Amino acid sequence: MSLTDPTRPTDVCLNTDLYELTMAQGFWESGLVDSQACFNAFFRENPFDGGYAVACGMGQIADLVENFVFTDEDVEYLAGLEAPGGGPMFKSSFLEYLRNHRLDLTIDAVPEGELVFPREPMVRVMGPVIDCQLIETALLNLVNFQTLVATKCARVVRAAEGHPVSDFGLRRAQGPDGGLAVARASYIAGAASTSNVLAGKIYGIPVFGTHAHSWVMAFPSELDAFRAFAKSSPKNCVLLLDTYDVRQGIKNAITVAKEMEQAGERLAAIRIDSGDLARLSKQTRAAFDEAGLPYVKISVSNDLDEYTIQSLFAQGAPIDSFGVGTKLATCDPQPSLGGVYKLSAIRGGAAEPWTPVIKLSEQAYKRTIPGVQRVLRYYDDAGCPTADMICLEGQPVADPSRMTDILDPFASYELSGTPVELLERVVEHGRRAKEPDGIEAARDRCKGALMRLDPAVARFLNPQAYPVGLEGGLAQLRHDLAHEERAGSSRPTVG
Amino acid sequence: MSLTDPTRPTDVCLNTDLYELTMAQGFWESGLVDSQACFNAFFRENPFDGGYAVACGMGQIADLVENFVFTDEDVEYLAGLEAPGGGPMFKSSFLEYLRNHRLDLTIDAVPEGELVFPREPMVRVMGPVIDCQLIETALLNLVNFQTLVATKCARVVRAAEGHPVSDFGLRRAQGPDGGLAVARASYIAGAASTSNVLAGKIYGIPVFGTHAHSWVMAFPSELDAFRAFAKSSPKNCVLLLDTYDVRQGIKNAITVAKEMEQAGERLAAIRIDSGDLARLSKQTRAAFDEAGLPYVKISVSNDLDEYTIQSLFAQGAPIDSFGVGTKLATCDPQPSLGGVYKLSAIRGGAAEPWTPVIKLSEQAYKRTIPGVQRVLRYYDDAGCPTADMICLEGQPVADPSRMTDILDPFASYELSGTPVELLERVVEHGRRAKEPDGIEAARDRCKGALMRLDPAVARFLNPQAYPVGLEGGLAQLRHDLAHEERAGSSRPTVG
Repeated sequence: MSLTDPTRPTDVCLNTDLYELTMAQGFWESGLVDSQACFNAFFRENPFDGGYAVACGMGQIADLVENFVFTDEDVEYLAGLEAPGGGPMFKSSFLEYLRNHRLDLTIDAVPEGELVFPREPMVRVMGPVIDCQLIETALLNLVNFQTLVATKCARVVRAAEGHPVSDFGLRRAQGPDGGLAVARASYIAGAASTSNVLAGKIYGIPVFGTHAHSWVMAFPSELDAFRAFAKSSPKNCVLLLDTYDVRQGIKNAITVAKEMEQAGERLAAIRIDSGDLARLSKQTRAAFDEAGLPYVKISVSNDLDEYTIQSLFAQGAPIDSFGVGTKLATCDPQPSLGGVYKLSAIRGGAAEPWTPVIKLSEQAYKRTIPGVQRVLRYYDDAGCPTADMICLEGQPVADPSRMTDILDPFASYELSGTPVELLERVVEHGRRAKEPDGIEAARDRCKGALMRLDPAVARFLNPQAYPVGLEGGLAQLRHDLAHEERAGSSRPTVG
Repeated sequence: MSLTDPTRPTDVCLNTDLYELTMAQGFWESGLVDSQACFNAFFRENPFDGGYAVACGMGQIADLVENFVFTDEDVEYLAGLEAPGGGPMFKSSFLEYLRNHRLDLTIDAVPEGELVFPREPMVRVMGPVIDCQLIETALLNLVNFQTLVATKCARVVRAAEGHPVSDFGLRRAQGPDGGLAVARASYIAGAASTSNVLAGKIYGIPVFGTHAHSWVMAFPSELDAFRAFAKSSPKNCVLLLDTYDVRQGIKNAITVAKEMEQAGERLAAIRIDSGDLARLSKQTRAAFDEAGLPYVKISVSNDLDEYTIQSLFAQGAPIDSFGVGTKLATCDPQPSLGGVYKLSAIRGGAAEPWTPVIKLSEQAYKRTIPGVQRVLRYYDDAGCPTADMICLEGQPVADPSRMTDILDPFASYELSGTPVELLERVVEHGRRAKEPDGIEAARDRCKGALMRLDPAVARFLNPQAYPVGLEGGLAQLRHDLAHEERAGSSRPTVG
């Protein structure tokens, strides 16, 4: 496991697909060292059949760029790689170029916690084409999963209707990083806490946890186990009722709760981790109320997601908090956002104008949007977002009251309200453009954005599509470029 | 991102759920410091509706245990945690106990690459109950995902029928660790290579990669781009045909392949990453054959999994190799193994006999197997496994020719052939018991095990269940303990 590998922290630059390096070598050899590119990271469909995604991971992009350096050890590894056809894969002069190469990138991104919609850039990367390629994989590895899991958690939190949700997913995550990403993104998206202690330490997220079934099994009886835990953790006492039989568990927990009262303490909650949570939570609530213990809260866990939580409330389950693990950490049933990183413009050097480019495909929905793009989000008087329009940077908006649908050039939307730039500068020429807001600010931003989102877009079942379109001139440019590329025409050489 | 966080390598011990620490404190306070436990990590159902799983991650357990230490910084973080009810969550005397605490665990595990089946221990952990809890989450975080993704990759490799499979999943993995785990486990399960350069460096896995669509778009024309790549990487040249139009891509690639021939080089392959891969691969093969370029291989990618690969071959697609990314790295459609870690025996001290324990549940399939277990795998004369029997360590096998079904106490299996111990010692009293085999040995083991597996168990559709059962005495013990616990009886105190 890399966690135990002392070489890890220096290896940001090798956390990449090999083709980024073979392309970098190719650009370097083709005399395109000064050529500049603009790439966009985006996704094509909202995850979970939902109406939105929660941008996440962007607060760590500046760290990634500033820490990106090929060490001597990295260069030595690359120097030892053989090409499949024989000989070294990389030329030694190129590797000398890479050694201590620093990224000269300028990056704009959707602020963490803000909502983001299909096909609009969530991260826009500009700079030397070589640098743009070198950062691609690590950047996608950073924002794809965190955006996905933040979106999943926002849905779970919505279903929980104000009751606290705790991330319990570490053991089913993809290694330590996966667990950290789940905890961080979930907190930004509204989770109250995490079981992950390392996430608590690194990110300052509240940590939560009490005991497992094994605690109960390690004692001669459940009652002994409950008493011992109450004695050890009287200020953090949640008793797990379902090691053997919940009915007996309820009785034992009530006994211990009464004993705690006599010692001046309070049993905070009980937890149920298996069985019919709707029925068992009702039985538990009734028993504790009858015993004069209405303050003891009920927490549940066991393969929960947004739909099981909705169902529990629909059945009237008196549940106070949720531990959500597996389905949060793995983003079941859609474990990938499908985020991509596509070239949208090139230029021969930093002083030249941009040339927009387009990628076609047999699959029309894979056709990209050309040009250096910015996004205007239109807000109504109540501060609620009504539509996003993608425009070209540095070009006037032909008609700020109308945009063309991204997928359907024959459909257009009326725009109204106040446009606000969605992307913000996070890296300027390889250096952080500003200190990151921190995860508390991102969490507040997410909460506000979800509160102001049209309920028709926010709902789980058949959500209304949030309008995202292209400014008129950009729509025309895209149309023209698609025709030209289909015809196989050549652009003038850049670089 | 933790990758850029310098505190990471020291933090193995905090990569845990908080409840492991609150339980550890509880055991310590309850005078159970010398109490010993035996835990098993196992899963309850084969992933992907398949007939088996491939054990993976076990080769890194010894690293995990040997690197497990609470630093001053960790203790300081824990000392600052407040209990929900007020006051410190951890007592300072307990934190002093944790400071520089080393794990005194003895661990047996299924060797990496070997097949493993539901409910049998894939990892068995014995030692002080505190230490067993402290390692739980990190251990599951290590083996759960790697076992899942190794299993997924074994299925993809099987579908590819001997054609090379390369892991392309890094950008959709859960951070750098996720990508490393995917690459490592996939290689053990039979992948030929990975795109992940860091995995190549750390684990010595062959790396593979050439160019992306962006390479083509950065040049004035596709032909220019192909020529430039062929010039830069003549010994590692795979041209991607679908940036604009595959028919034009084929023509341009053939032109460049002919030019390469004249320069004494060979175009290794072309790659198609979108569209109807069955039809496009046939058109491509026909065009290259007609052009006298039968040696140019066809590689495909684009949301592949075992089923799409099977379907491509069923359609007669002349494909030579596969790049598999998203669905491998996320283990779509089942992103969690559901691996658990359950207490099976306790004793008051290292010199005392073990007391088997059981966990019940409303959900009968969650009932655990008690006792310190070992697993005998029975092989026939051809070296093929025929059944696994779980027995109690240190107890004679009552009837080595018969076992009771795990789920159905009324069903029994006949056994024949030669029994071999499945678990091997990896850690003894906190120190590695042997040097790990390395991933090449694990890869060989996996290949051999899959080759010898009954095809009825290996198939994707409705696989036959591989027989796993309990030795007669163990089956009786489990039955008796379940009755006792249902009756709410108390065991004698241990510790």
